[in-house]
Amino acid sequence: MAGLRDDLRALLDDVRSGTTAPEEALERLSALPFRDLGFARVDLHRELRQGAPEAVLAEGKTPEQVARIVEAFVEGGAGSVLVTRADQDVRAAVREVAPEAEEDALSRCIWIARGIPETRGLVVVVSAGTSDGPVVREARIRTELLGSEVVVHEDVGVAGIHRLAAALPDIERADCVVVVAGMDGALASLVGGLARAPVIGVPTSVGYGSAHGGTTALNAMLTSCAAGLAVVGIDDGLGAGTIAARIARGRE
Amino acid sequence: MAGLRDDLRALLDDVRSGTTAPEEALERLSALPFRDLGFARVDLHRELRQGAPEAVLAEGKTPEQVARIVEAFVEGGAGSVLVTRADQDVRAAVREVAPEAEEDALSRCIWIARGIPETRGLVVVVSAGTSDGPVVREARIRTELLGSEVVVHEDVGVAGIHRLAAALPDIERADCVVVVAGMDGALASLVGGLARAPVIGVPTSVGYGSAHGGTTALNAMLTSCAAGLAVVGIDDGLGAGTIAARIARGRE
Amino acid sequence: MAGLRDDLRALLDDVRSGTTAPEEALERLSALPFRDLGFARVDLHRELRQGAPEAVLAEGKTPEQVARIVEAFVEGGAGSVLVTRADQDVRAAVREVAPEAEEDALSRCIWIARGIPETRGLVVVVSAGTSDGPVVREARIRTELLGSEVVVHEDVGVAGIHRLAAALPDIERADCVVVVAGMDGALASLVGGLARAPVIGVPTSVGYGSAHGGTTALNAMLTSCAAGLAVVGIDDGLGAGTIAARIARGRE
Amino acid sequence: MAGLRDDLRALLDDVRSGTTAPEEALERLSALPFRDLGFARVDLHRELRQGAPEAVLAEGKTPEQVARIVEAFVEGGAGSVLVTRADQDVRAAVREVAPEAEEDALSRCIWIARGIPETRGLVVVVSAGTSDGPVVREARIRTELLGSEVVVHEDVGVAGIHRLAAALPDIERADCVVVVAGMDGALASLVGGLARAPVIGVPTSVGYGSAHGGTTALNAMLTSCAAGLAVVGIDDGLGAGTIAARIARGRE
Amino acid sequence: MAGLRDDLRALLDDVRSGTTAPEEALERLSALPFRDLGFARVDLHRELRQGAPEAVLAEGKTPEQVARIVEAFVEGGAGSVLVTRADQDVRAAVREVAPEAEEDALSRCIWIARGIPETRGLVVVVSAGTSDGPVVREARIRTELLGSEVVVHEDVGVAGIHRLAAALPDIERADCVVVVAGMDGALASLVGGLARAPVIGVPTSVGYGSAHGGTTALNAMLTSCAAGLAVVGIDDGLGAGTIAARIARGRE
Amino acid sequence: MAGLRDDLRALLDDVRSGTTAPEEALERLSALPFRDLGFARVDLHRELRQGAPEAVLAEGKTPEQVARIVEAFVEGGAGSVLVTRADQDVRAAVREVAPEAEEDALSRCIWIARGIPETRGLVVVVSAGTSDGPVVREARIRTELLGSEVVVHEDVGVAGIHRLAAALPDIERADCVVVVAGMDGALASLVGGLARAPVIGVPTSVGYGSAHGGTTALNAMLTSCAAGLAVVGIDDGLGAGTIAARIARGRE
Amino acid sequence: MAGLRDDLRALLDDVRSGTTAPEEALERLSALPFRDLGFARVDLHRELRQGAPEAVLAEGKTPEQVARIVEAFVEGGAGSVLVTRADQDVRAAVREVAPEAEEDALSRCIWIARGIPETRGLVVVVSAGTSDGPVVREARIRTELLGSEVVVHEDVGVAGIHRLAAALPDIERADCVVVVAGMDGALASLVGGLARAPVIGVPTSVGYGSAHGGTTALNAMLTSCAAGLAVVGIDDGLGAGTIAARIARGRE
Amino acid sequence: MAGLRDDLRALLDDVRSGTTAPEEALERLSALPFRDLGFARVDLHRELRQGAPEAVLAEGKTPEQVARIVEAFVEGGAGSVLVTRADQDVRAAVREVAPEAEEDALSRCIWIARGIPETRGLVVVVSAGTSDGPVVREARIRTELLGSEVVVHEDVGVAGIHRLAAALPDIERADCVVVVAGMDGALASLVGGLARAPVIGVPTSVGYGSAHGGTTALNAMLTSCAAGLAVVGIDDGLGAGTIAARIARGRE
Repeated sequence: MAGLRDDLRALLDDVRSGTTAPEEALERLSALPFRDLGFARVDLHRELRQGAPEAVLAEGKTPEQVARIVEAFVEGGAGSVLVTRADQDVRAAVREVAPEAEEDALSRCIWIARGIPETRGLVVVVSAGTSDGPVVREARIRTELLGSEVVVHEDVGVAGIHRLAAALPDIERADCVVVVAGMDGALASLVGGLARAPVIGVPTSVGYGSAHGGTTALNAMLTSCAAGLAVVGIDDGLGAGTIAARIARGRE
Repeated sequence: MAGLRDDLRALLDDVRSGTTAPEEALERLSALPFRDLGFARVDLHRELRQGAPEAVLAEGKTPEQVARIVEAFVEGGAGSVLVTRADQDVRAAVREVAPEAEEDALSRCIWIARGIPETRGLVVVVSAGTSDGPVVREARIRTELLGSEVVVHEDVGVAGIHRLAAALPDIERADCVVVVAGMDGALASLVGGLARAPVIGVPTSVGYGSAHGGTTALNAMLTSCAAGLAVVGIDDGLGAGTIAARIARGRE
Repeated sequence: MAGLRDDLRALLDDVRSGTTAPEEALERLSALPFRDLGFARVDLHRELRQGAPEAVLAEGKTPEQVARIVEAFVEGGAGSVLVTRADQDVRAAVREVAPEAEEDALSRCIWIARGIPETRGLVVVVSAGTSDGPVVREARIRTELLGSEVVVHEDVGVAGIHRLAAALPDIERADCVVVVAGMDGALASLVGGLARAPVIGVPTSVGYGSAHGGTTALNAMLTSCAAGLAVVGIDDGLGAGTIAARIARGRE
Repeated sequence: MAGLRDDLRALLDDVRSGTTAPEEALERLSALPFRDLGFARVDLHRELRQGAPEAVLAEGKTPEQVARIVEAFVEGGAGSVLVTRADQDVRAAVREVAPEAEEDALSRCIWIARGIPETRGLVVVVSAGTSDGPVVREARIRTELLGSEVVVHEDVGVAGIHRLAAALPDIERADCVVVVAGMDGALASLVGGLARAPVIGVPTSVGYGSAHGGTTALNAMLTSCAAGLAVVGIDDGLGAGTIAARIARGRE
Repeated sequence: MAGLRDDLRALLDDVRSGTTAPEEALERLSALPFRDLGFARVDLHRELRQGAPEAVLAEGKTPEQVARIVEAFVEGGAGSVLVTRADQDVRAAVREVAPEAEEDALSRCIWIARGIPETRGLVVVVSAGTSDGPVVREARIRTELLGSEVVVHEDVGVAGIHRLAAALPDIERADCVVVVAGMDGALASLVGGLARAPVIGVPTSVGYGSAHGGTTALNAMLTSCAAGLAVVGIDDGLGAGTIAARIARGRE
Repeated sequence: MAGLRDDLRALLDDVRSGTTAPEEALERLSALPFRDLGFARVDLHRELRQGAPEAVLAEGKTPEQVARIVEAFVEGGAGSVLVTRADQDVRAAVREVAPEAEEDALSRCIWIARGIPETRGLVVVVSAGTSDGPVVREARIRTELLGSEVVVHEDVGVAGIHRLAAALPDIERADCVVVVAGMDGALASLVGGLARAPVIGVPTSVGYGSAHGGTTALNAMLTSCAAGLAVVGIDDGLGAGTIAARIARGRE
Repeated sequence: MAGLRDDLRALLDDVRSGTTAPEEALERLSALPFRDLGFARVDLHRELRQGAPEAVLAEGKTPEQVARIVEAFVEGGAGSVLVTRADQDVRAAVREVAPEAEEDALSRCIWIARGIPETRGLVVVVSAGTSDGPVVREARIRTELLGSEVVVHEDVGVAGIHRLAAALPDIERADCVVVVAGMDGALASLVGGLARAPVIGVPTSVGYGSAHGGTTALNAMLTSCAAGLAVVGIDDGLGAGTIAARIARGRE
Repeated sequence: MAGLRDDLRALLDDVRSGTTAPEEALERLSALPFRDLGFARVDLHRELRQGAPEAVLAEGKTPEQVARIVEAFVEGGAGSVLVTRADQDVRAAVREVAPEAEEDALSRCIWIARGIPETRGLVVVVSAGTSDGPVVREARIRTELLGSEVVVHEDVGVAGIHRLAAALPDIERADCVVVVAGMDGALASLVGGLARAPVIGVPTSVGYGSAHGGTTALNAMLTSCAAGLAVVGIDDGLGAGTIAARIARGRE
């Protein structure tokens, strides 16, 4: 926002001083900082505007499209770039335009880490089961790229509630807790009733039958009687990682 | 079943001895033990067949219809009769034909307690919140009419998990545990992970929005990773009470 | 947590010193700080444990039950108490046991404000339409009871997007933004793309037909391409207010 | 309609003049202008009746069936023919019977352009993301075959709302605007609040989890508070292109 | 749009000429033409921007709120104002601030007709049954306030398809056809296969059971094989009337 | 159909003989036999066309509208007229225009019986519970008005399967069996596996929770492994009665 | 039924005459005529009981299981056997045990035609589109195996309603009409409003997006205002063929 | 529970005696008996706590992860271990770490049978069709590993109800009956009305169209009017086997 506001102020100053004609100002107001690839408009400005480097959802795009978008970010001087839901072909295409990219096959992420801010805040990620692993990793990668520390406790199921005990000391000192759980999503209610910090629930599509692809866990988290809990979309590790880092870093 | 089998055996004996003609036997096979009220066929035989006294769902019936059904059971010599979802008008109509009936306004139950078998087995009913009260009572009344002891722990929400601790000693000695919970239904998962006895979950329609009238709690219980848990329909205290008593009493 | 851990530590010290026998310790471990009203177990400890005063959902409880729960909190020395979804009868019953209670008819809230911490952090609440008013108020009351400043901008619909402009300066300086919107929920996506602070979306049941009682707004917020957005349940102003204050106040 | 009415009038004239016997007239009334292929009745008359050349949905048909239907249209003297959802095999089969066909692999369209009317009206197609590309193309091809000019702006997401600015001049001069968007479908609400021309929304199945295969975008568009917006089915570029061209060309 | 663009241009001219200081320009850019009532921001500019007078959805607002919004529009010099879903109390409150308002009890509409443009274009509204009447009227009132002629054919059900015949001459000469239908919504498919003009379907909540409150009609219309058909939300006569008038009046 | 065809033939003969001018014939083709009441087009021809007297769904119509429609049928010389879902006000309004009407409060039906054909065929209606009574009656009234004999067996629940035995002799001699059942709809599967005659299932909205307003019974009937079973809409006694009578009467 | 009743009568006669001891009779009552394959109980008696030869759903069974079931029917002297949803492997396995089997790849049916009764009654099958072909064929095969004549009209879409005209003469003379339609299912409403004979609707899973896999067509048919229409499950050609033949053959 | 309580008692004794320092006790309270594999926390204590050996859901885990979890159980001295939803690769990986494992390809189970308690109680499993076989086997394996006898009756469909007769003697003597059924799930209602023992229903995903992947069977079972019936999740043979064995073995 600040950026937009400052741009506008500068433009108005130029108009006043006669450096810029009103017609040209009008033109420049439309020429906002994105880069048009024809099939995509790469928003080079978001990082300044929101403090979050760009993320690209690979699903529904061809490997070539993803690679060209990544290339535009890299050339545009953006900070970190994270590509999610990237299958092998996409990752190969990205590596060609950005050989320095790191990747993780389990969570299908590939990313270029650049200009990560100094670490600030602690995010604790707790998951209900081993199968939630890919979502845990997506959240972790995103949070770390945004500059917060991450501690992970996996497979802390409600059915064996004593396993939660080992995670409690970390939960107590967290600035934000992310709970990743499929099936009944009950872990989020439980942690939501114990933690002082804000809790972000991530329902996962783990489970069959009445799990309804994550909808049951989602609804359970939303209707949980534990206050202090908010939820992102099913399997949305990226979204969880983003808001968790923003919460953990606090006002900047 | 035993009853039917025995009836059939007796009939066949009569046919053999010539006491009964085949035509008449054929007729009697159709004349099974129910009482036809025109709009309802009162099944006087279920108690013998299944060991469970009759329950009448008042919803969708006029007060007069309910009263006449109750009357038929009482006259037919049935054991206990329990009417559920009975509003004031229905309860008044029942009291006229059965002045000895007991009732509970909160759970909208009215019942005639007769021939309750000697108490056997312990059912522990645990509920997540105060609003689950009516379902808890319906389950309790049914279980006690069927001859099991009931201990109730209400308002044991997951958000304040330490409140469950006080209920644990009873849960440990139960023959069957009934968990009544709306919203996210997480209490069932939690108890299901702790109890040795079979656990029956009753999702309730408590909660708004994403609770979806009990569907979220239902699905959460069904997809729970806690084995040893089975579920009855939303708000179905009657069903829970029935199976809980059968489990608790064991083979008779 | 800290409370529980400290209690446990103290207890163990007592056991060691012989002040407390193991049997008694075992007993005391079960005697956790709640108050049993029979139909409700009032959790007097949550405020210490989680820093959030208690909230009571009146829906599904009788006015008497609500009043007795409030009374228990007040007598138990709890901080603020907030009753939501409280119709006229409930509010009257609460006023009898707590004459100092404040109330708001539009949002059906009644509350006793006690020991509110020093104000810290700014929460900006933005709503899409006039009909979202009750949810806005519930969120505002909760946040203020938890000790954060609240600024509200109502009726900032997407269909007239220029109306959002006036809210932008406040959005820029917020520690947390709450977006309350029914129908298509598009305002949350829009604000989510503009704000630097964490954004909490509250879908409302405003709208008819394809609004599906808030489910459309909920799903739209969850699937929004705007990162940095998390969501609470439909019409859940209480939940939004809780997490927003926790985020805005930061680590305490 | 006009065609049917005129045919009927001519037939009645023939009956009156005795050229046609009533029996024969009755027969001819049933012999309406379609061509029976056994498994399909090709409607050669629709173009005259409705001014829209035929479109064939390939899904659920064998390549041979599609090819024979196309052949019947071509031989029957129809205008343009557009086959949608045509995979490689279908397109190959069509090319054999119509070597002059043009095709587009991304949107799986293949078409024979014939007798396109003089261009009239401007349709502006705006899409939310790169992944909406196939639907954008299907709409564009259909609109152009129907004789309207098309201008496309892709990847104009709500999360970076300033990207919409560059599209505004075209939106202002459009006779009809088509908005193609998946996930939360918020772009349609936004454009619907800005455009003077009728807006046709096309929800797409882009997005995962709470996108529910396009249902969320669909519902969001339907419940949008922006008046002047109507919607076609999920991913239905064909339907959008058809009504957009009809609107843009106006009364003919 | 034009309005906003012109305002901006004028402002920039003022800045250049020194009439307006940059700081003041910045301020005025935020002071866009709405009127803040606290609970509502009345958008006085939409009429200029989109050519559609304002509509107010009364549902979810108190009668007083509606009356004050209407008052603001009337005082702000807006054109026509239409209040929909207005029950008796709302209509009484509106009549007090605008005694000249006309109203229709069946469709629960109340409106102040002012500055209606010269009639242009013909909209034909066809409905499936008598029960669709309220939606038909809402659409008709809206279209007429926007300056198009309306002809209505009610109760043209598919089950007696010959009843459609009498409506055909009007359908043939329409600039836009609106089809209002509940239950199976089949009338929209049928008309969509006959009309040359764009067809706007309005599913209604008429019907019980499998009609699912209008969802069946909605889905049927969306999946209809009739091209040239787009759909508005369930019971949304207002939306249908708006887009129909825009289509019928054409580019202005 | 026959009627339409014959009309057309007669018209063509008139045209040929010169008795009717083509222009007039065209006009008369549009003037099909319905009566336009403004808000309703009464189809006086359906009885001839389909052999079924008219049925009027009162829901969503004002008592006056229903009365005027009934009046039109009566004056138009139609056969029987049946009004369904008619509350007290509607029935009173109908009695004023048709004092000879018979009515049934439980099923909310009111009807004028005229020209019922000679009885032919036997329809056996079997219901699962007392609460299904209103639907049973609606089906029975409709079937009898259409000229078939009806035998009813109520409250033949699956849970007490021996109660079905008494109904079997009638089921064996039926020309069509109608099974009315809510909740799990299992009775339809059971009868469908026993009957030789075609079986029509009517799911009812009886039951709460997982009955989902009749959807569960509907789906259960549709997915039943019993062949020879088809289904009408939830609570649609009218539809069931209509097709049952057509089946039972056979080709006429 | 008749069979069961007769068996029972014979058994009772034997008991009376002393030919059979009661114990043995009891035993024989359990030994009903099915053949136990371990994983399947082949019901050799259904043909006698219901007049319908057996149908085997191959889905979810291994080819070997299907082959052994078919073998059991063939050896058991059953009449025709029809296997549906049989992929290539299943059909190959069936051909090995029944080389005389006929098959149809499009509808994935394979069948052994034996003892088909003399043809009686006419079933007219009308479909909306070419893609409905497999369901049309399944219905046709089943009906013909049950001994009714079948006439098929394919691709009679509502969007080109005049194509229905050619089918009308056959529809008029049918004993039962089967309408097969996906998408909006509107053809069933239309035919239901024209035919005198009972109409059986078969919704198909043809269509994408809002077709919801056939659910939209299903609901549209169920809520159709056309009386005289009943519906079978989605894509259930078998069920439609069964009831259609029973209706067409009439009482036997 | 007993285990936990005993551990705690022992710990407290140690603290009292000075053997253990409070700090160490605190530490040990967190060090509960699970084994941390990084991606999984193996709960070695559940068998003692709940009397049920561990089950591992292979779905969503890599073969290596499953193998390492199994290995940990085996090395940790657990009793039986059962892996469900294990495809060929998983089973191969498990066999490498546990060559003694038994497996069943149809139900995709692999298990190591160790320390099975003396057989107690009889569970009768009844299934509706051959396709329910895999779920039947999963339930059987689980129940037998838990130490109850299992008798299976497969393919006892409601459409041929006499096939149930042969299963009745076993049902009568069962301690718990498990009913496995897809499609309409009617078998559960039927058995629920006949059995004296508790009945556990397992809805299966068998069936297409309106079976909705098992949801119809699930809802039908939940809403069944047969009391004494509780339900586990769709296809959840494991859950059914667990609770059935607990019920059948009774209090231990």
